[in-house]
Formats: sequence, C-alpha cells, structure tokens
Amino acid sequence: MPTTDEMKATVQAYAAAHTAKDADAIVALFAEDCVVADPVDRPEMVGRAAVRDFFAGTHEMSEGFELKVTGPIRAVDRFAAVPLRAETSMGGSTFAVDIIDLFTFGDDGLISEMRAYWTASDITQL
Amino acid sequence: MPTTDEMKATVQAYAAAHTAKDADAIVALFAEDCVVADPVDRPEMVGRAAVRDFFAGTHEMSEGFELKVTGPIRAVDRFAAVPLRAETSMGGSTFAVDIIDLFTFGDDGLISEMRAYWTASDITQL
Repeated sequence: MPTTDEMKATVQAYAAAHTAKDADAIVALFAEDCVVADPVDRPEMVGRAAVRDFFAGTHEMSEGFELKVTGPIRAVDRFAAVPLRAETSMGGSTFAVDIIDLFTFGDDGLISEMRAYWTASDITQL
Repeated sequence: MPTTDEMKATVQAYAAAHTAKDADAIVALFAEDCVVADPVDRPEMVGRAAVRDFFAGTHEMSEGFELKVTGPIRAVDRFAAVPLRAETSMGGSTFAVDIIDLFTFGDDGLISEMRAYWTASDITQL
C-alpha cells in the first residue's frame, strides 16, 4: 500500500503530466484496469487505453492547458482528496474549472480509481 | 434527487450544526440508515443513533468546537465534496483538523453517506 507521501507525490505528478499535455505520463500513474469518472456523473471509463484517449482529447481541444493543485492534498488509507483548477484556453478565451478529485490507490501504488467532482457551475471564464 | 443548491445548503447546515454542538440537528440531515466513516480509514458507523453518539462524543471532548467550510463546495449528481476545518479546544490548546468531506445524498435529499478524508498529518496546533 502506498504511503501518504507517495500518494501526494502521485497526485502532483498527475497534475504536472496534465500541464505537460502528456497523456502517456498520466496513464503510467494508473492501473491497467483503472476506472475514471470525470466528472463523476459521466459514464465511467475503464482501462488505461480509454482513459488515455479521454485525456488526450481534452488536451487536443485546448490551445493551453494547465492543471494546478489549489489546496492541500488529504491522503489517508488508500485515498487522496485534492482541490484542483484546470485552466483551458480555446478560441481566445480562458476558462477555469474548479474541481475536487478523489483518487483511490491499489497495493501497487497505482491509481485504481479517480472521480472528479465538478459541474457546470464550477466553470468560470477568466 | 436534491439540486446542487440543496446539497450545498445541507453541507452548510451540517457545518453550522457542528459549531452549535447540536448532534440532533446534525443527524436530522442524515438518512436513518446512513453510513459515516470519519476519518475514512476508521470502521464505518451505520445508522443515525451511532452517528449521533459519535458526533456528540466529539463535541463533549472539546471545550470549543467549530466546523468551517474553507473552500467552495463541489456539488454534482448526488455528491458534494468540500474542504472543511474543524477547530477544537481542549486543555488550553487549540487544534485544527483540515479535512475534505465527501457527502452522498439519497433521492429524499438526506445524506446517505459521509466519508471524511484526513489523517494525523492534517492536524495542526494553533
């Protein structure tokens, strides 16, 4: 089971890989049979390939994309909860999406589940 | 199913009832067969009576107790995720516990589940 510090480091690596638009680096943090719901009311994606395509698509839609950890990561047991802000530029406008992500980790330290808590009212035009 | 605004109002009422040390007002927000894990790595408590006893015990341990919402509530589908700070005074010292809570709601708008993400390293002496 990963330590608190290992889970926090993985969350930071997740945000950095998004900002680098590096979908391969993102899915390297996830288990092969991972489950992702982003936002949580969308159908779950299952498996690295589906998750990779989803995030690569998000990055491709954006001229600029940045994912920032905006507050302390609360890591306990096999979970990490964290507030994040995604900033995305398209067509000359920049939008911020404020999120709380909940990560679940497997014994191997890889992310087995990620659920993103945000909805339309959490989007702001900057 | 509760609306986003209804879920946010319930989370605010939850924090206010804690600060008032009103365990009855807290459990009135929960379903009869609710499940609570606070923190998430402790055994689950099931049912209003168990949850009431747990929170009343927390309040009794403290000379002063305050629960504050410290950032935006992300409410989506039947979930609300929120950063909170609990401040508790005992024996002349004040401690802060920084938390992310995840609430799940039933169709009746009552809280069916609450899981609190925090651990020892999220406690600070003020």
